Amino acid sequence: LNLKAILFIADGMADRPLKELDWKTPLEAARKPILNRIARTGICGIIDPIAPGIPPGSDTSTLAMLGYDPLRVYSGRGALEAVGSGVKVLPGDVALRCNLATVDENLVVLDRRAGRIANEDAFELVESLQRIKLKNPKNVEFYLKNTVQHRGALVLHGSDFSTAVSDSDPETAGKKVLEIKPLDKSPEAKRTAAILNELSQEFHKVLSKHPVNMARDKHRLPPANMVLFRGAGTIPKILPLEKVFGIKAVCVAAVSLIRGVCKVAGMDLIDVKGATGTPQTDYMAKARAAVKALKEHDFVFLHVKATDVAGHDGNFKLKVEIVEKIDAMLGYVLDNVDLDSTILAVTADHTTSCVTKNHEGDPVPVAITGPYVRTDDVAEFGERTCAMGGLNRLRGVDLMHILMNLCGRVQKFGA
Amino acid sequence: LNLKAILFIADGMADRPLKELDWKTPLEAARKPILNRIARTGICGIIDPIAPGIPPGSDTSTLAMLGYDPLRVYSGRGALEAVGSGVKVLPGDVALRCNLATVDENLVVLDRRAGRIANEDAFELVESLQRIKLKNPKNVEFYLKNTVQHRGALVLHGSDFSTAVSDSDPETAGKKVLEIKPLDKSPEAKRTAAILNELSQEFHKVLSKHPVNMARDKHRLPPANMVLFRGAGTIPKILPLEKVFGIKAVCVAAVSLIRGVCKVAGMDLIDVKGATGTPQTDYMAKARAAVKALKEHDFVFLHVKATDVAGHDGNFKLKVEIVEKIDAMLGYVLDNVDLDSTILAVTADHTTSCVTKNHEGDPVPVAITGPYVRTDDVAEFGERTCAMGGLNRLRGVDLMHILMNLCGRVQKFGA
Repeated sequence: LNLKAILFIADGMADRPLKELDWKTPLEAARKPILNRIARTGICGIIDPIAPGIPPGSDTSTLAMLGYDPLRVYSGRGALEAVGSGVKVLPGDVALRCNLATVDENLVVLDRRAGRIANEDAFELVESLQRIKLKNPKNVEFYLKNTVQHRGALVLHGSDFSTAVSDSDPETAGKKVLEIKPLDKSPEAKRTAAILNELSQEFHKVLSKHPVNMARDKHRLPPANMVLFRGAGTIPKILPLEKVFGIKAVCVAAVSLIRGVCKVAGMDLIDVKGATGTPQTDYMAKARAAVKALKEHDFVFLHVKATDVAGHDGNFKLKVEIVEKIDAMLGYVLDNVDLDSTILAVTADHTTSCVTKNHEGDPVPVAITGPYVRTDDVAEFGERTCAMGGLNRLRGVDLMHILMNLCGRVQKFGA
Repeated sequence: LNLKAILFIADGMADRPLKELDWKTPLEAARKPILNRIARTGICGIIDPIAPGIPPGSDTSTLAMLGYDPLRVYSGRGALEAVGSGVKVLPGDVALRCNLATVDENLVVLDRRAGRIANEDAFELVESLQRIKLKNPKNVEFYLKNTVQHRGALVLHGSDFSTAVSDSDPETAGKKVLEIKPLDKSPEAKRTAAILNELSQEFHKVLSKHPVNMARDKHRLPPANMVLFRGAGTIPKILPLEKVFGIKAVCVAAVSLIRGVCKVAGMDLIDVKGATGTPQTDYMAKARAAVKALKEHDFVFLHVKATDVAGHDGNFKLKVEIVEKIDAMLGYVLDNVDLDSTILAVTADHTTSCVTKNHEGDPVPVAITGPYVRTDDVAEFGERTCAMGGLNRLRGVDLMHILMNLCGRVQKFGA
């Protein structure tokens, strides 16, 4: 037995019962014949991505769902997102998430996204910042990359950096840009904070006088005159999936953070035209890409962000619709893979409540179908039906081992 | 979402099926419309307070149910009980539980409770012992406090003490008072044992000639001529609940041990008139106190001891009656709190079997009701019905995080 596997994760798909849906969750309320078929022909359960009652981030949960214990290996979001957006981050480097923002003369943030600045403007502005030379300390190599619109990543390259530094991003407009402070007493944290504060000032100086911003001013567009930093991180020290399970693994995901986690796990990344990480993504294009990728790989990680977006907006109607689109995606997958040699698992990386509009620590449902799976009586895919399933209640970090075991790809422990 | 929570714990309420109850447990046999309503409107499960098959103490289980891992933080019962009875125990101090006892001239214990000596006699005797000065080592500060009847606490104040010492209490009458021995090879354990042995002798000397005991002899009451020590402990190093979850927490409990655990967790303690920690406690007074306390606090820990007392006595009929009184308590709570802003959880701290008359390692049932809880099909609160619930099987240490997650009070791990 040497099967292949597809792990489908709908970001934030799990939810709580909603009054507006007659006390059903969006997942429960959706028409989802395929998801129900997967539950009916498979084994179901619930998963605490991190631990019971702990609201997961998408980064920590994805690490867990790939079999890495996030409590041991997680080292901040910045580096994962940078890697996912195509920036090289090496061991020793510290990476941060960046926003091009608009500030006034007192450094009060007017718009954290500089009017969701167009890619062309952002690209030209960021390029000019790369030429800055730091004075104190000298010779610090940094790399600033613009990804999409106002978003970007900053990498401090070398050694003697620390992730124990605060953010300069105040997270809400109307507040002043924050001074970055060391969060512990190490010389590395002090040094890193000093470098970031200097970069912040130098970036502001250059951006304030930049011709692109002069032009934006003429067109009554907010100038992108500041770069806000947050989420300092390093790449986690983990073995690639190929070393852990001997598998060739591939990621079909649009959002940088998820791509970053998969990249540090040694997975191939596939770019799908029309995949956007938004509710308007091309769902079927991703399904097709996953089916195609399975031919050349042993394991496909297929991720859809849209459910989480709808949850954060509290838009339960949209969330129901997205679940139905996901259902169609999975229909394509089931129709086009060899069901005799494929394990298919469906779950969410966390609960995103349409009421609180936030990640919550409630468990997520999971269903696994494929050859020789011990089926149970669950006939519907949902938060509460799956809780009655044969898998009982699992931790996220156990899922990958369960899948790889069904694929015949886990080493025996003992003799 | 920022809800409040009540955690109700009936000590030792869980049990095993009994022939005399037609193979039902006392909880299953009781008439309990309110407990069933909580199960029906909520989500149920079973909890291993420590780990599957491990019989918990009330101290370790209460630590776990408050979210502290007892396997890491538990440091003996003595200090917790001392704190709970109003004695100050500082970091470094070692505290022990004490019994005023009756011994013969060969130090054989005749009565471990000195005829359940009256508070007045006990108080006067214990006060005289406080004046003793130790010779070797000099200047050891100790504090002896009489709590109720024969019960008390001894605190060694300072540093260089160890909890690795045996008890002098032989636990049964007819046996000789035991010499206290160091349980490891540290100088601290040796020193602590020596101090306790000297205190034991000095206490015996003073008590043997004490006028109160002369008077007791005249009235044919057994003299309280010895102090038995057991359960050396320190206060566990734990963060207060306010630091962990940002909540103002309060404890409504009568027994010292539970109050001690809550106190070291930084909780306020409420004294309820008529609350005794016995089957004759004023159940409704505690329910009223809990409802009132919820107005000024975010979290109420409400504890009833009586179920455990009935279990230790093997009195299953009484245990059934107590469950029915608890049911009425919870009816008052449900009628008098704002159900739109309160999470209510009901469980036991361990199984106390009416057959073995001891704590057992069987899991305990739990039900959680409140806004946006993912309900299940369980319609009856019991050991076996709850095992079919949507929470599946949990560890005690996870419960508090689950409750605080439902209250919107847990920090996200990751981004």
